[in-house]
Amino acid sequence: MNISGENIRMSAAANRSRESVVASLMAKALAKPGILSLAAGFTDNTVLPATLVREAVRNIPENASALQYGSNQGRPALRRSLAEKLRALDGAKIATVDAAGIVMTNGSQQSLYLLAQVLCDEGDIVFVEAPTYFVVFDVLSGLGIEAMSLPMDARGQVDPELLRELLCRLRGEGRLNRVKMAYFITYYSNPGGVSMESGVKRELGKVFSEIAPWVVAVEDTAYRELYFSSPHPAQSILALPEWKGLPVALTGSFSKCFSPGIRLGYFATNVPKIVEKSLNIKAQQDFGSANLSQWIAEYAFASGKFDTLVAGLRMHYAGKARALSDELAFGGLRKTGWKWNDPDGGLLMWLRGPEGLNTGADGDFCRECIDREVLYVPGAICYADPESAPKGNVRLSFGTLPAKDLREGARRFCAAAKACK
Amino acid sequence: MNISGENIRMSAAANRSRESVVASLMAKALAKPGILSLAAGFTDNTVLPATLVREAVRNIPENASALQYGSNQGRPALRRSLAEKLRALDGAKIATVDAAGIVMTNGSQQSLYLLAQVLCDEGDIVFVEAPTYFVVFDVLSGLGIEAMSLPMDARGQVDPELLRELLCRLRGEGRLNRVKMAYFITYYSNPGGVSMESGVKRELGKVFSEIAPWVVAVEDTAYRELYFSSPHPAQSILALPEWKGLPVALTGSFSKCFSPGIRLGYFATNVPKIVEKSLNIKAQQDFGSANLSQWIAEYAFASGKFDTLVAGLRMHYAGKARALSDELAFGGLRKTGWKWNDPDGGLLMWLRGPEGLNTGADGDFCRECIDREVLYVPGAICYADPESAPKGNVRLSFGTLPAKDLREGARRFCAAAKACK
Repeated sequence: MNISGENIRMSAAANRSRESVVASLMAKALAKPGILSLAAGFTDNTVLPATLVREAVRNIPENASALQYGSNQGRPALRRSLAEKLRALDGAKIATVDAAGIVMTNGSQQSLYLLAQVLCDEGDIVFVEAPTYFVVFDVLSGLGIEAMSLPMDARGQVDPELLRELLCRLRGEGRLNRVKMAYFITYYSNPGGVSMESGVKRELGKVFSEIAPWVVAVEDTAYRELYFSSPHPAQSILALPEWKGLPVALTGSFSKCFSPGIRLGYFATNVPKIVEKSLNIKAQQDFGSANLSQWIAEYAFASGKFDTLVAGLRMHYAGKARALSDELAFGGLRKTGWKWNDPDGGLLMWLRGPEGLNTGADGDFCRECIDREVLYVPGAICYADPESAPKGNVRLSFGTLPAKDLREGARRFCAAAKACK
Repeated sequence: MNISGENIRMSAAANRSRESVVASLMAKALAKPGILSLAAGFTDNTVLPATLVREAVRNIPENASALQYGSNQGRPALRRSLAEKLRALDGAKIATVDAAGIVMTNGSQQSLYLLAQVLCDEGDIVFVEAPTYFVVFDVLSGLGIEAMSLPMDARGQVDPELLRELLCRLRGEGRLNRVKMAYFITYYSNPGGVSMESGVKRELGKVFSEIAPWVVAVEDTAYRELYFSSPHPAQSILALPEWKGLPVALTGSFSKCFSPGIRLGYFATNVPKIVEKSLNIKAQQDFGSANLSQWIAEYAFASGKFDTLVAGLRMHYAGKARALSDELAFGGLRKTGWKWNDPDGGLLMWLRGPEGLNTGADGDFCRECIDREVLYVPGAICYADPESAPKGNVRLSFGTLPAKDLREGARRFCAAAKACK
């Protein structure tokens, strides 16, 4: 009953869009049921808030409006709670944005997509960190936008002076006005586990202010609240005086600190025009994110139970991070030339392999890991240009697997590392 | 703390996208708290399935996977249920599509957006009925696509012979290959309340097959199950022999027959390439619709309670349709030259005003209605070219308001009609 559709010419957008790396990794995992995935960026099923979600749904008001269409921008009380939360996280005296500057989206993924859609035309440039969250490359290439790596220092921080040089070079090439957006993952980043230092944020503000004040800084804070001991001291870009007057959009997510299954995120911006235009396009795409999901999030805040949940998640993931790191160390991975820092938040670890190792999907090490039934994310896919990217890095996730399986996965990984030494 | 953002040049897509009509109608409604909206396309809060949703959430399996990320395409058991439902609705011996041909989306709105994205480039043409669901114009213009009206007969059916002429004319102009999609609302349509006759569907299949077999027919079936006495006899385009070998995508929604608040819809197609490419782009936009919403829908099917719910909705909305129509007749609307057919399904009524009346937002009749605190959708916005559209039509919804308010709204509408006579 299917037809070949050979005579259907798909759009340029369709032809630019390739299968996501996530999908192909999942296919690999499914092909071997015994495989342990240290690649998947899921959270841990055992700490999903089933009880709280049931309670929230039990408490849907009797007129059941949470089951009706909501507004395109999102529930006002939820957006007010988020504005208040951002103020609290930044220790700001007054709110950095108000509810009118916040748009609820289908995960922070849709925030990223809408921001790219309203800000960029085909051929425009978006700055990304190196490494960065690899799905952003699909978003950008799907929309015909060029991802350009920012110059980074050895600690994984963007280098403000080299950024200044890059901007000047682009100006010389007549391309500076094509730069529309800069994408930063500023807390316990995916994949590097790095948080952007306050001093770096301030310097970046000065550089953009001086040379390219129209570039919208998109600050992805998906992991910000998942710190292990204390909150990272850096304020968000939105709150820093060096960024005053510059356009900023902060994105956030309910996936990491609550439940990925409600598929809810948001962005907060100081540019009303970005809200307005994003809402025009969001109305075309879905006319508002699921009102039920928003009610659940609103209830979690209003009941105070969101904070209790997150406090538990911090301890839980801190323990799992330690389990994975300890087992890798115990398995002798450092002795085979691997290096990593213990994460202080988030769900991810970034490992640098020994000199000359290739961790790509086509290499011996990857084959060795798949043979031993353990999966990781090859580091090179986290760079704008995989060809020129460092070849020896790996992203491991401690989010999904229980501690026992994390340890077993680590042992398999160490065994593969030894075999490829 | 907001900035003007004057120096930020937005994208062409952003500048093409205007505020949705729905948003501006809602703003009008909010400005007058006592206004009765016969414009809003919401469903009735009193028949939302709060109890069933609570039951579904209570029954989330203990490992809570419905609160985890789902797959990009959607829950397999839900897609299998939908394939089965389509087969049953069409009385087909074998399934018209299988689960692999179905993609779950954020309302059927996202289905429409994804299909337009994967099939059309800027400057391409999409055929629409006249009148049609007005939000489709925002989708198409936002993506730079031209909406072109199909020739319709006096009964509101697409005219196959005139379609043949239109296609030949486009061929003569060298534009035939720019036609990529034809959008039909085939059951109790929005706004006309018309169902496409089986004979018309068959003839259309022959015309496309002969002249433009690459054009993808998108059949929107959002209201199909909301029939008032018996199901409409026409099979879906997917099931008709005249369409065999032609590309078809059927869209469906959980908003009308279940709950708009779970924001869930789907499309089903016989072209695997459309599934593949849509999924690539969906992965960029959101990486899958809310797993929790999908679990709720899956539970509703598996428990058999979806069918019970819909049976109740049919009686409920049939009663409300009658209330609105009776009150309009009782108020003497026909005597002032208005005409309408009693709907036999759906949530909408389409009224044709007396010769020479202008129901546009800038006209006396609209002002009169707003003064009397009743809101409607001006018919002209449901045509691809509002300038050349008939000016005297109106869309009324009996979905949202309770019967008492429907009757009061009808009385106000009749009073406005008399005042403008």
